[in-house]
Amino acid sequence: MSAQTPLSGYTYTYFNIYSPTDGVAHVEINRPKKLNAFSEPVWLEFGRIFTRLSGDENIRAVVLSGSGDRAFTAGLDVQASSEGSQLFVEGPDAARKAKGLRSHIEEFQGCIGAVEKCEKPVIVVLHGVALGLAIDIACCADIRIAASNTRFAVKEVDIGIPADIGTLTRLPKIVGNHSWVKEVCLTARDFSAAEAREVGFVGSVRESKAAALQAALDMAGQLASKSPVAVQGTKELLNHGRDHGTVESLRYTAVWNSVAVQSEDFKKGIVSGLKKTKPTFAKL
Amino acid sequence: MSAQTPLSGYTYTYFNIYSPTDGVAHVEINRPKKLNAFSEPVWLEFGRIFTRLSGDENIRAVVLSGSGDRAFTAGLDVQASSEGSQLFVEGPDAARKAKGLRSHIEEFQGCIGAVEKCEKPVIVVLHGVALGLAIDIACCADIRIAASNTRFAVKEVDIGIPADIGTLTRLPKIVGNHSWVKEVCLTARDFSAAEAREVGFVGSVRESKAAALQAALDMAGQLASKSPVAVQGTKELLNHGRDHGTVESLRYTAVWNSVAVQSEDFKKGIVSGLKKTKPTFAKL
Amino acid sequence: MSAQTPLSGYTYTYFNIYSPTDGVAHVEINRPKKLNAFSEPVWLEFGRIFTRLSGDENIRAVVLSGSGDRAFTAGLDVQASSEGSQLFVEGPDAARKAKGLRSHIEEFQGCIGAVEKCEKPVIVVLHGVALGLAIDIACCADIRIAASNTRFAVKEVDIGIPADIGTLTRLPKIVGNHSWVKEVCLTARDFSAAEAREVGFVGSVRESKAAALQAALDMAGQLASKSPVAVQGTKELLNHGRDHGTVESLRYTAVWNSVAVQSEDFKKGIVSGLKKTKPTFAKL
Amino acid sequence: MSAQTPLSGYTYTYFNIYSPTDGVAHVEINRPKKLNAFSEPVWLEFGRIFTRLSGDENIRAVVLSGSGDRAFTAGLDVQASSEGSQLFVEGPDAARKAKGLRSHIEEFQGCIGAVEKCEKPVIVVLHGVALGLAIDIACCADIRIAASNTRFAVKEVDIGIPADIGTLTRLPKIVGNHSWVKEVCLTARDFSAAEAREVGFVGSVRESKAAALQAALDMAGQLASKSPVAVQGTKELLNHGRDHGTVESLRYTAVWNSVAVQSEDFKKGIVSGLKKTKPTFAKL
Amino acid sequence: MSAQTPLSGYTYTYFNIYSPTDGVAHVEINRPKKLNAFSEPVWLEFGRIFTRLSGDENIRAVVLSGSGDRAFTAGLDVQASSEGSQLFVEGPDAARKAKGLRSHIEEFQGCIGAVEKCEKPVIVVLHGVALGLAIDIACCADIRIAASNTRFAVKEVDIGIPADIGTLTRLPKIVGNHSWVKEVCLTARDFSAAEAREVGFVGSVRESKAAALQAALDMAGQLASKSPVAVQGTKELLNHGRDHGTVESLRYTAVWNSVAVQSEDFKKGIVSGLKKTKPTFAKL
Amino acid sequence: MSAQTPLSGYTYTYFNIYSPTDGVAHVEINRPKKLNAFSEPVWLEFGRIFTRLSGDENIRAVVLSGSGDRAFTAGLDVQASSEGSQLFVEGPDAARKAKGLRSHIEEFQGCIGAVEKCEKPVIVVLHGVALGLAIDIACCADIRIAASNTRFAVKEVDIGIPADIGTLTRLPKIVGNHSWVKEVCLTARDFSAAEAREVGFVGSVRESKAAALQAALDMAGQLASKSPVAVQGTKELLNHGRDHGTVESLRYTAVWNSVAVQSEDFKKGIVSGLKKTKPTFAKL
Repeated sequence: MSAQTPLSGYTYTYFNIYSPTDGVAHVEINRPKKLNAFSEPVWLEFGRIFTRLSGDENIRAVVLSGSGDRAFTAGLDVQASSEGSQLFVEGPDAARKAKGLRSHIEEFQGCIGAVEKCEKPVIVVLHGVALGLAIDIACCADIRIAASNTRFAVKEVDIGIPADIGTLTRLPKIVGNHSWVKEVCLTARDFSAAEAREVGFVGSVRESKAAALQAALDMAGQLASKSPVAVQGTKELLNHGRDHGTVESLRYTAVWNSVAVQSEDFKKGIVSGLKKTKPTFAKL
Repeated sequence: MSAQTPLSGYTYTYFNIYSPTDGVAHVEINRPKKLNAFSEPVWLEFGRIFTRLSGDENIRAVVLSGSGDRAFTAGLDVQASSEGSQLFVEGPDAARKAKGLRSHIEEFQGCIGAVEKCEKPVIVVLHGVALGLAIDIACCADIRIAASNTRFAVKEVDIGIPADIGTLTRLPKIVGNHSWVKEVCLTARDFSAAEAREVGFVGSVRESKAAALQAALDMAGQLASKSPVAVQGTKELLNHGRDHGTVESLRYTAVWNSVAVQSEDFKKGIVSGLKKTKPTFAKL
Repeated sequence: MSAQTPLSGYTYTYFNIYSPTDGVAHVEINRPKKLNAFSEPVWLEFGRIFTRLSGDENIRAVVLSGSGDRAFTAGLDVQASSEGSQLFVEGPDAARKAKGLRSHIEEFQGCIGAVEKCEKPVIVVLHGVALGLAIDIACCADIRIAASNTRFAVKEVDIGIPADIGTLTRLPKIVGNHSWVKEVCLTARDFSAAEAREVGFVGSVRESKAAALQAALDMAGQLASKSPVAVQGTKELLNHGRDHGTVESLRYTAVWNSVAVQSEDFKKGIVSGLKKTKPTFAKL
Repeated sequence: MSAQTPLSGYTYTYFNIYSPTDGVAHVEINRPKKLNAFSEPVWLEFGRIFTRLSGDENIRAVVLSGSGDRAFTAGLDVQASSEGSQLFVEGPDAARKAKGLRSHIEEFQGCIGAVEKCEKPVIVVLHGVALGLAIDIACCADIRIAASNTRFAVKEVDIGIPADIGTLTRLPKIVGNHSWVKEVCLTARDFSAAEAREVGFVGSVRESKAAALQAALDMAGQLASKSPVAVQGTKELLNHGRDHGTVESLRYTAVWNSVAVQSEDFKKGIVSGLKKTKPTFAKL
Repeated sequence: MSAQTPLSGYTYTYFNIYSPTDGVAHVEINRPKKLNAFSEPVWLEFGRIFTRLSGDENIRAVVLSGSGDRAFTAGLDVQASSEGSQLFVEGPDAARKAKGLRSHIEEFQGCIGAVEKCEKPVIVVLHGVALGLAIDIACCADIRIAASNTRFAVKEVDIGIPADIGTLTRLPKIVGNHSWVKEVCLTARDFSAAEAREVGFVGSVRESKAAALQAALDMAGQLASKSPVAVQGTKELLNHGRDHGTVESLRYTAVWNSVAVQSEDFKKGIVSGLKKTKPTFAKL
Repeated sequence: MSAQTPLSGYTYTYFNIYSPTDGVAHVEINRPKKLNAFSEPVWLEFGRIFTRLSGDENIRAVVLSGSGDRAFTAGLDVQASSEGSQLFVEGPDAARKAKGLRSHIEEFQGCIGAVEKCEKPVIVVLHGVALGLAIDIACCADIRIAASNTRFAVKEVDIGIPADIGTLTRLPKIVGNHSWVKEVCLTARDFSAAEAREVGFVGSVRESKAAALQAALDMAGQLASKSPVAVQGTKELLNHGRDHGTVESLRYTAVWNSVAVQSEDFKKGIVSGLKKTKPTFAKL
């Protein structure tokens, strides 16, 4: 992946942002020596990037991967977190410490959750080591593609706390085997890409990181060529459907689409379907 | 299927309604030349049929399929929808157009949702082409059986809008692999019956439409011989469980069953279980 | 299993409670001649046991199985329930009968739901006959391991009522193939351990009851050695995630962990991770 | 009120529909000899009228009152309901009777709830006898104006059932004195217009039916002259706000207004505000 | 009140239970020397009493007051709570202490909440000192009647914690002046019976404790003479309405009443309404 | 108020921030020539100020008022909003415009909602002109105190749109007279401070702006002297109670207080209550 084109204007400390195809951004976590682990400055930057991509009309689909061969991410940079962190902040009492911790956790959740809030679809490529925070991030992405060598674990129990950046919130809603969900979250045991595929955590497995990344880029390119009104609305409504009852979500859909169907894209879509032509859709 | 018995009194323009067994209605979409596509008169009739079946005490289970060998349904009849439709209605401004569209979408949702609201279990037989609206309908049915030749797609993105008749609302709640759900909804790609089975969208796959239909009719016949208090209550409570939290749903269940257990069926069920006899249950 | 050590102080009429390892309780339904069926005194005792285990700081994980080779449980003891039960109580009218039935169902739900409310993880070992109430109980457990000979069925439709002790509430939330969920609940048909595994109802299948029980005990032992702050919080937050929207559940998680991360366990977890040592965690 | 102009095309059996001003419909319950009581044909017609007014672009505000001096409505026509009604339908068992009753209640709820669903604001004029169903109806209206002689009561407890057409659902959400709400619902005691005003159930009290009706017609006329995009959206969003949490409702508002602000009305409103002119708004 | 008749079989340590009229229980907090303050044994007994009354078919309405002239209750018995309480329990860390505290708070909430869960209407008579826990209790009651000398305060802020036994949960739902709710909860200032009446916290104010109690007993007697199916269902449905959206609550109401209208009481109510006789209703 | 002390470090363009007492911030909208109207830079700054105050441990209570004698705020600066605003942005179609508008509304909602999210109590002083956005802001504040000359209106209907910055979401939850809420929102009519008090929208009315401000500052000073653990937790739990069902909110309260009661403040509160001393509480 050495010769990738940088995405113009997207220069960051901990991430490389490439522009593999028109309309696609490829975000690469770039701390390979640290197994792409996340310290606080890393996740703050991560949140800023996805918030920016969400509002950038030139971007229609995003791919996320880790740099290097070893890891998507090893999760929290425990070393950094244990030094001078808010996590061990002193305070006169537990309630006072709790206030700072609550803010800290919510800010952290917000940075990772920026992937879910990003209005463009996000495809995550999981490879190598994918522990702890890797799962929180993957749960926020829309589509999960894994290299066959991925080693997953919901690791937080082994550092003595329940996972709090989203895995325990989202995993029960997106994987249909709760016995498995409980087992991997409670035991913190490793699971393979094949197992992740079998239980429905990832959508597909490829033989290598390169192949997984290529599949993700191909899919992102395809999504970028489609109507952004349709694609972004579909992401929004699927996430709404996951979180709300049927009556509620159908009404929201009707309100949403009462303006979506007024787009040019709908006319273009209908016409090109009838004429068997390939439409081009404006930015959104 | 040529020699099927019509269901007495159920004569419709776009649908054949058969009476294959006592207590079972078989609804067949009957526009084979149009690949069983739905224009507005079709879905209005569809809604009326399922509302009527819901209240017909002679019917205890419903099977739904498409006529002909080619398609369950190709989805929206785009040709018809693009002619003189409300979808392209003029109006002085976007807000005024939106009002009509909102009503239009909600009426359409209501007609398809009549399958879910139907108090009797509905088994859908998917075969051949099953695109767009086919998925909305299938998500409303209780049990999905597919012929091996079924070609599925959540097609709406390719006509430039998010699906709005229920797929995006219901699919995340009924399939336990959200990566796959997002992928097929965002890309609009085809998927096969085998893939649908693997991810849990359909319950089983049969080698042909005929075999799938036979399996559905057999199951419907079996359901029709069981206690309608038990069968219809089970449908109601499973749908409630899908849409509500556990505490909420347990309470609703207790209130519901405080009268259900006062039925004759419970006594018959207990007695026949102890005596190893086969009970007969009255209409509901 | 003859030589198991009883758990001190836990003497009950219908259950054996063993202490296989430090921190683990093994609850065995002990009515093998009745196929471990549940009459009212059985489920009342069952509720009391799990409530007590929940509050017992010496216990960190629980395994539940049936005694004998034939059954986990055949479900409701229909014979006992049909004799002198509230279910057939006379009353001046349906509304008056309903009140007693509602209380009866809610008390029954509460006893079985004590497994879900138990703050310690519960691993259920399913084997042999596992009908009706067996499924309600299994849905409340966190992890489900089945022996290959298990014969499952959601049997209630065949006694003329919708299941009301939790299956219809919980199954749609924990299994990601709703077509299958509806089918087994509506038809009351048997399904095998292999099928249960394939659709995601159980986490794994072992060749025999003994092997399944051993796997459960091993996993329970492993859980008991981990941080109870992490393990019990993980159970709580996964159940919360299943039942609430994402925004709601993330906030609850932040509030929960604002005190959880103040435990010693977090410090121990971090340190032992960095030093590659194995920590010991205090009771909770 | 004798010389009122009928609303063209709105001819009904139990209701007079007048056209007092452009854009306003005045619905009058017209069974004065029966104290405007509701039997089944009355409420079915009532539902049809409000559904039709909701979709009639010529109507922008609705006033509802009873004909004659004696009553808004005495509520359910108990005599009619006790003759040949579904309420006393025979059936083989309580569960079977319950099914019919559930459908009956839901249809009845739907007819009265058509006032709430009506997209135009509905002002109800309460006067004279206003018992039982009168309160259900009043709770569905947007604005309640009472004549000083109104005699209210939530009467259902005195016919031996909890009110089921909406009072118990809506009253706790719209009146901010729950002690009072519980008292009048549990005791079925009468309360006066003055008391209704004091606790916040009605918005204002006028000295006579004529004065109350005039105030309602004046307000309706005023509402009809305003932007229908603004007025109808405000009704929708206030009802949404009442029924949803803040986060949920703010999001729905943003989606709703993303098209509402694209109306001509917003531009006209802004311009006329700056220029101090009076705008005219197109139909919706 | 000296000559009241004890309610047979209801002998408790901290409460007197009287039987003023057929079907009515009068619960009197009996620690006048402690201003009727609650220590742990007091609230545990309080919970048991209301749970028992809920299930006692001879009781149809409950009145709750404090003994003596000085206080309804001064709230938490701080002296007792500060001695040997769980509140100051030692523990190795904040997370471990939190577990015990959570259980403690939930048990306490459950005991006070037994008033809300009690299926019979509960009328609370507030008089004299009514601080802290007095408000939590009053919020759980259905109807609040105050003596004019009552001195109220939501006192918890002044002992350094947010109120946690229900006031902050329920008060915003039952009083329609949130500015006032926030003010009295944040400042912990006293407020009078007149102010409580003005903002809608209490339903009425009487000149003395004796008059308030008499009004409560009269109302309770009246409620006890009405249909218990109607009265208890009304309590249930009003509480449901307060806590749920309209669609949800209407459906629950329809399911509930599908059995309630099958009671004898409905027939008796209809008949006695038509014949102007006074019906007698059986126990529930 | 000319001699107020600025709050150190809080220098802003459109707002004065004073430090009237230890722990109290007084935010004054400072565009008196524009009647304190809000253009986009104003609300962005407003959001930043309240977010900062929320996290500033030196601040324990906030007062908000308008500068000058004429207005709290006249609401949206319509002139500024009609020039070069996103509101009239051109776009290829309605769906594309809707996206920008949605973001715009949500950002605006977020800035005003920062008052509700601010963890410290906010007391708003309403005076003079208080239109449109004034109500949105007031609904977010905790306590509302009005000068007797305040002229209120929910003005948005008169600019042709439903209010979208929070009034329609929050007003139905905080005022217990829905007839009045609907009336003032649908008609956009003025209402006085006295009327606002009568229906429960404001907590109290004072004879002048100066008196209202003094009352607010006094109350804020009092709140700042109390336990911040208690005060801030009370705000959080009351807002939670307003937005959630009872069961949900009681559980959240128990989790929240399981750490709050571990504060020093609780011990100090208990001790000072017993010893009748006045405690001093540390920052939070």
